[in-house]
Amino acid sequence: MRAVDIIIKKRDGGILSNEEIRFFIEEYTAGKIQDDQAAALMMSIFFRGMNYKETAALTLAMAESGEQVDLSGISGIKVDKHSTGGIGDKTTLIVAPIAAACGVPVAKMSGRALGFTGGTIDKLESIPGLSTSIPVGKMVEIVNKTGICVAGQTAELAPADKKLYALRDVTGTIESIPIIAASIMSKKIAAGADAIVLDVKYGSGAFMKTKEDAQKLADTMCGIGAEVGRRTVAVLNTMEVPLGMCVGNAIEVKEAVETLKGGGSDDLKKHCIHLAGKMISLGLNVDEDMGEKLAQERISDGSALKKLAEMISTQGGDPEVCEDPDKVFGITAYSKVIKASKSGYIKYTDAYKIGMAAFTLGAGRTVKTDPFDPNAGVKLYVKCDAEVKRGQELCVLYSSKPISDESVRWAKSAFEFR
Amino acid sequence: MRAVDIIIKKRDGGILSNEEIRFFIEEYTAGKIQDDQAAALMMSIFFRGMNYKETAALTLAMAESGEQVDLSGISGIKVDKHSTGGIGDKTTLIVAPIAAACGVPVAKMSGRALGFTGGTIDKLESIPGLSTSIPVGKMVEIVNKTGICVAGQTAELAPADKKLYALRDVTGTIESIPIIAASIMSKKIAAGADAIVLDVKYGSGAFMKTKEDAQKLADTMCGIGAEVGRRTVAVLNTMEVPLGMCVGNAIEVKEAVETLKGGGSDDLKKHCIHLAGKMISLGLNVDEDMGEKLAQERISDGSALKKLAEMISTQGGDPEVCEDPDKVFGITAYSKVIKASKSGYIKYTDAYKIGMAAFTLGAGRTVKTDPFDPNAGVKLYVKCDAEVKRGQELCVLYSSKPISDESVRWAKSAFEFR
Repeated sequence: MRAVDIIIKKRDGGILSNEEIRFFIEEYTAGKIQDDQAAALMMSIFFRGMNYKETAALTLAMAESGEQVDLSGISGIKVDKHSTGGIGDKTTLIVAPIAAACGVPVAKMSGRALGFTGGTIDKLESIPGLSTSIPVGKMVEIVNKTGICVAGQTAELAPADKKLYALRDVTGTIESIPIIAASIMSKKIAAGADAIVLDVKYGSGAFMKTKEDAQKLADTMCGIGAEVGRRTVAVLNTMEVPLGMCVGNAIEVKEAVETLKGGGSDDLKKHCIHLAGKMISLGLNVDEDMGEKLAQERISDGSALKKLAEMISTQGGDPEVCEDPDKVFGITAYSKVIKASKSGYIKYTDAYKIGMAAFTLGAGRTVKTDPFDPNAGVKLYVKCDAEVKRGQELCVLYSSKPISDESVRWAKSAFEFR
Repeated sequence: MRAVDIIIKKRDGGILSNEEIRFFIEEYTAGKIQDDQAAALMMSIFFRGMNYKETAALTLAMAESGEQVDLSGISGIKVDKHSTGGIGDKTTLIVAPIAAACGVPVAKMSGRALGFTGGTIDKLESIPGLSTSIPVGKMVEIVNKTGICVAGQTAELAPADKKLYALRDVTGTIESIPIIAASIMSKKIAAGADAIVLDVKYGSGAFMKTKEDAQKLADTMCGIGAEVGRRTVAVLNTMEVPLGMCVGNAIEVKEAVETLKGGGSDDLKKHCIHLAGKMISLGLNVDEDMGEKLAQERISDGSALKKLAEMISTQGGDPEVCEDPDKVFGITAYSKVIKASKSGYIKYTDAYKIGMAAFTLGAGRTVKTDPFDPNAGVKLYVKCDAEVKRGQELCVLYSSKPISDESVRWAKSAFEFR
């Protein structure tokens, strides 16, 4: 088998066999196929696409290129959840405890993120004392005891994907739906889940800019799941506006707690109940309506919040965060309220611009090793379809350093008057 | 300027600017842009194509990536000829002396070839004593004195093309017409010609398999010529059957001599007169009919053959080759006559299969440093539209080593009975 023949086959619109895809990925990971040939194949896939069978073969080849987490020590159906990311996305902090409170075992590996804010792991680590550096064996032990553990990625999952991603980044081959789908699913599969709930975002604050592309990505990932025998369902959700009213790290933990207390904004609550319903449906083999009903009950009876407190405590954090978060996080050094410069009707608040405000306040990072400010963030007072008066408070910006004009400009420009 | 942005622009169907193309080629040649990005750009061009302006910019950037031959010391319009290659293509050995005999200065750099037989340089060097290692300054001197010199490529012409070709070979991006056109034209332009006659082949024995693709390639090269201000004309010619009756190295020199003596097969003679006519037309500013008339006259009056003898002698070879080639080349050690196994009508003789016969006899090579057998080759007795009787001689195979069954099989299978 020769790499160049595989490239030419795809270039000319052929369907690659499982053996061809596996050969290419294995040899590439081993450094026997070079970057030039991998770039040519990626660009051919960009133009020609791949069917579900090919995409599944690519996914498995990448999933099997490194360590694979063994969760067989945990009984029950392990349901993972993946969000394609966005502004104010704290869903894991809410749906994982809900699912666990329903008896669905949650053994989740989450990532650190680049860009606007941190990832789930960064948000969790803004809780003093909390650790996410938990080896797989320990995670299995914790889940068997408490039903929930959210850990950082300790194992080297899907190194082929990591290598390919770096290549795609410099060769203009990021925006290929089958490759994006294989990239996400390879890590989920390597992380050991039996079933997967996908939360696919679209809009200004998401990687997928249009609903059509998000739908294609969702369909492709569900297609892969079907091919590899992992039940996979997807939810589409807009990211034209931030999810919820808080964007940052500690501030998002606070919003998650508020939501588990039964408060929080309607859009966030509705979305989390929907996602949790799907996880519960997959994990307990009940229908989705029942799943949502159970999810709602675990919020109402306080057991989901209790589960989050248990998780935080087990991982070394202060569970007081679930009662009085301000006491735990303290007061942020600098803050600035943004007020409406005129009276009018705010149609929506742009997710991307609020994300940039949070980023410039210090909530995000450019490279994975950058430090960031857990207390930096934006809290919205109004978001969509709101009548406001001149001088009314629109949002407040928080940071551990003085608030820059740039952050203020981003925040102000985010509010779109009709 | 970033390489990845240039890749994405082309990937998405954009038109690259002269600056973008030059930046990419210069940085790639300098090793500052890596193979992965170049492969991605080549594949994008494969899918999206390039217009004449872009292709001309690519051509010039490659032409200017290395040495550029200065032929300004030769007065008159220097006309180069390029053939895209094929089986039995000895046209340079015929048309160059004809054009020179008409007063068109011929300062030509030719290449060694891979595959079925050698290139023009290899064919010339099968003449004992003849050297083609002639520096540019010496070539100018020879042309000013005798009007003709055919040298090997001493200068490093278009190193960007060389580097890109090696990359394209392993990344499935050879078959892109704009890149092929730029590759050919960059070397012709770097070789210093004022005007260019292109001999574009198509068919089983050519790189271009269809007439349509050959026409596109010809049009693209003429488009480049127009953009860069070098008059360029193209001739299309089939390579379904070999050109002439001889395929090899020394054996093709013999056929060229025969043709310049007024003999030889009709197809070869006609094609050479046509090509020479175009060269003369460009070089002397006469119309093409006049060019062909002059070409015919230089054969008839023996001056073209005399010019070839002068060239051979000047370059250190034995001009006796133009009188009695057998005396110079000697008798080839092994030969085998192939006879018709049945009576019938031969529709045509497949160029590719005759090429493979010649290759397996030792006339070609796989890598440029391979030695090859100058005396190996095939001489056809019949080619197209011929009634043959069982036992009639179809061709004879020559080699310095015993004739293999493989060569015999290729030769036999080449004759297509109706």
